[in-house]
Amino acid sequence: MRTAFYISDGTAITSEVFGHATLSLFPVEFQHKTIPFVETVNRAHEVKELINKTVSAEGEKPLVFFTFVNPELSDIILSSNAVCYDFLTLASHVLKKELKTEPVPRIHRTHSIHESSYDFRIDAVNYALANDDGANIKNYEEADIILVGVSRSGKTPTSLYLALQYGIKAANYPMTEDDLEKGNYPKCLLPFKNKLFGLTIDPERLSLIRQERMANSKYASIRQCRIEVREVEMLFKKHKTSYLNSTKHSVEEISAKIISEAGLVRRKY
Amino acid sequence: MRTAFYISDGTAITSEVFGHATLSLFPVEFQHKTIPFVETVNRAHEVKELINKTVSAEGEKPLVFFTFVNPELSDIILSSNAVCYDFLTLASHVLKKELKTEPVPRIHRTHSIHESSYDFRIDAVNYALANDDGANIKNYEEADIILVGVSRSGKTPTSLYLALQYGIKAANYPMTEDDLEKGNYPKCLLPFKNKLFGLTIDPERLSLIRQERMANSKYASIRQCRIEVREVEMLFKKHKTSYLNSTKHSVEEISAKIISEAGLVRRKY
Repeated sequence: MRTAFYISDGTAITSEVFGHATLSLFPVEFQHKTIPFVETVNRAHEVKELINKTVSAEGEKPLVFFTFVNPELSDIILSSNAVCYDFLTLASHVLKKELKTEPVPRIHRTHSIHESSYDFRIDAVNYALANDDGANIKNYEEADIILVGVSRSGKTPTSLYLALQYGIKAANYPMTEDDLEKGNYPKCLLPFKNKLFGLTIDPERLSLIRQERMANSKYASIRQCRIEVREVEMLFKKHKTSYLNSTKHSVEEISAKIISEAGLVRRKY
Repeated sequence: MRTAFYISDGTAITSEVFGHATLSLFPVEFQHKTIPFVETVNRAHEVKELINKTVSAEGEKPLVFFTFVNPELSDIILSSNAVCYDFLTLASHVLKKELKTEPVPRIHRTHSIHESSYDFRIDAVNYALANDDGANIKNYEEADIILVGVSRSGKTPTSLYLALQYGIKAANYPMTEDDLEKGNYPKCLLPFKNKLFGLTIDPERLSLIRQERMANSKYASIRQCRIEVREVEMLFKKHKTSYLNSTKHSVEEISAKIISEAGLVRRKY
């Protein structure tokens, strides 16, 4: 299997995202190797040697997606026996004409603690944990959004993703059978109706997820799951709460849809 | 301020990461707008109109970073009055020569629930939550890694990031004063010494973080923070536990370093 390297003087996350998205266009399998924090000439030479050994071992040039701020390090990687793709430099050549400005690369520009959004993101993670699963119903003033849905409909991973990636403070509240029987949102949510966003899920999928947690329980039975899902969706409609079905979507997709539909302000790009 | 659009038929995360990394090379401020899930001809025309209105309002062409699987949708965006950068198509032209294979784009290739790693990632999030802060010392068999450190040294956000982004099962255990007084890891950790990874932090920063949580407490005092940090670092050295200082690093950087140093297997690229 051909090897793809993702190399950088920082986390190499940008190289990974770009390289992986590009390679996924082709019906070919790759072995992926990330080498972050290549920050010295010595280390760059070590990495070059590693690349060259891969060529000897596999008989094929690996693909190398890389970004460096220091051109001396770029040059060492470029001199290896590989197909090198310095995609940010290529893009900056296009953009500098349009922006009529020279690029001024700085190290650790992205994915570092120096991004202005960083403290927001850590605060948001602490908020999401403290307000997970209806744990703390007194802090909803502070929420950017409150996810509601039945138990195991995907609220917790979504809250955490919104917090970690975007610095959005997402609380989540599980609608219990008690709440659903009353046919209304609980009192603690009513003052914050404009912050609510519903998650629903196909009852069959919900039952499977709950089985893993509590096999053969009433809680996991398909009948119970059907009742709860029907009732929570009725509630969303009655209160005109925006909602989406999480069954076939990843946390990335659910988060992107919520941000877009609820018009949330992101603290990070 | 000039506008940068990130547009896609999916989450637009790839466009955001690539576009943002490129723009961050330049000493220019941008207004960022993401438009995900542009999946129909009608919607693409709406977006084109929005782009063209931006030109009239700002007097400058916005920058548009986009990816589409359907070329009909690409063409609509390309016909807008903007600087359009179809970076994946450009990259695929380079790669198809090298790979001697035509690209076969599929919709929602990346960041979707169909990635084989998806269930791993959600399991890992549930694992990280259930094993946060020493909550469950019986499940360490299952851990890929166990983060250890004093209270508030960055263990929880790092565990969650490792889980959400990479599907790595990370437990975390807070070394209490009690543990530190005994001068050894607690019994529950000793059988898993090879899975431990330490986080430390500058005492001044630790004291600030703890002050926010419990102002004027012994717990937050600089003296207490100094003692705990010194003792935990001695312990890391005594047991030859790999560790790093989280003070000046983001969760992305800490995670990348841990994966690289501990040789962890990632389930997602």
